[in-house]
Amino acid sequence: MTLPEKEETSKTRKIPAKSRNSARTKEDIIQVAIQEFSEKGFLGARVESIAKLANVNMRMIYHYYESKEKLYISTLERVYRDVRESELNLQIEDMRPELAIRTLIRFTFDHFQKHPELINLVMGENLLRAKYVKQSDLVPTMSERLQGLIGMILDRGKESGNFRKDIDAGQFWFTLFSLCWVPVSNMHTMSWSLQCDLSNNEWKEKRKIHIEDMLLHYLSVF
Amino acid sequence: MTLPEKEETSKTRKIPAKSRNSARTKEDIIQVAIQEFSEKGFLGARVESIAKLANVNMRMIYHYYESKEKLYISTLERVYRDVRESELNLQIEDMRPELAIRTLIRFTFDHFQKHPELINLVMGENLLRAKYVKQSDLVPTMSERLQGLIGMILDRGKESGNFRKDIDAGQFWFTLFSLCWVPVSNMHTMSWSLQCDLSNNEWKEKRKIHIEDMLLHYLSVF
Repeated sequence: MTLPEKEETSKTRKIPAKSRNSARTKEDIIQVAIQEFSEKGFLGARVESIAKLANVNMRMIYHYYESKEKLYISTLERVYRDVRESELNLQIEDMRPELAIRTLIRFTFDHFQKHPELINLVMGENLLRAKYVKQSDLVPTMSERLQGLIGMILDRGKESGNFRKDIDAGQFWFTLFSLCWVPVSNMHTMSWSLQCDLSNNEWKEKRKIHIEDMLLHYLSVF
Repeated sequence: MTLPEKEETSKTRKIPAKSRNSARTKEDIIQVAIQEFSEKGFLGARVESIAKLANVNMRMIYHYYESKEKLYISTLERVYRDVRESELNLQIEDMRPELAIRTLIRFTFDHFQKHPELINLVMGENLLRAKYVKQSDLVPTMSERLQGLIGMILDRGKESGNFRKDIDAGQFWFTLFSLCWVPVSNMHTMSWSLQCDLSNNEWKEKRKIHIEDMLLHYLSVF
């Protein structure tokens, strides 16, 4: 469950041996915090439980993250960063436009399916009216980079004559996002309401193909 | 904020004078409960607060709804029923297929925008893995009726040659739902992430037009 080290402070850089330890401890804490906050929400989660599950003492958590609020904001930034970095790592800028869009759709759909903790955290934040995510400048900055990338790909498709000229990149991305989001965000209520198991692999595969078909159909010039 | 009376027990039908009173009291309780549960979630909401805000005593709530759980399930059924009944009341079965679909899209988009309490309740239920909505047989029954209606409209459009023959009604409805849902469910986080106010009327209008265009484009034969 632990991710590779991604954060280093100037302090940890100076003392390599200690650095590995503290980076590792920080990482353990954040991974446990992601689970705790996504399962219980900001209000329901307890720093004490996080300390216990991460096998550190409370003082350590406050040393690294200052407060429950800041730890929670760090978990939000982490799940946003994971999806944004993975999108950039797809290197879709090097693909022909149609394949680039198909790759982005498949990745987004699969990432949300594999990371219900991301969806739970973001749903929780919306129920709190984004009170905490608004304290992160990293979130809009990363989003802007993705929007730029998608705009560039759509522009290439328009220039090559494969994509319609009147596609708005922002609207298109919002649509792609929505279609991949709801199968996870509403999985439990929809499974009951439609009497159909949305966690079933066959259902997911069908859904992904439908999304891909529809979005490519929308982009294509006839 | 109160809706017209919609529920009558056999008891209330027998005694008209008392009926109005008890139906009214039940209705007041449910309206307050919708607000309380949608703002605080099932765990955070308190029956005591609901009693206070509805200006009734706790005993009255337990008399009508038995338990906090059953009161909560009644609020879920109410918000589901409101949207499902309104959809049926559009009488789209009498419209030509394209107009029927446009009418359904516009209604769904506007209904979700006007009823964030519905979205909050359903998000909360998903965070609880649909534990309570699964106790309602009404929810899947109402959903089935809507699915039938949409299937019928798409069939008429296919027969008249206006709609593509390979459209799957279930997938199409899920898409329509997702596109109308996320602008409300993710309004707060998206507004920050995209640095763009999703509660702004101009943004909503643009979004609604995009959804309509895309879905009709998808259905149409070229």
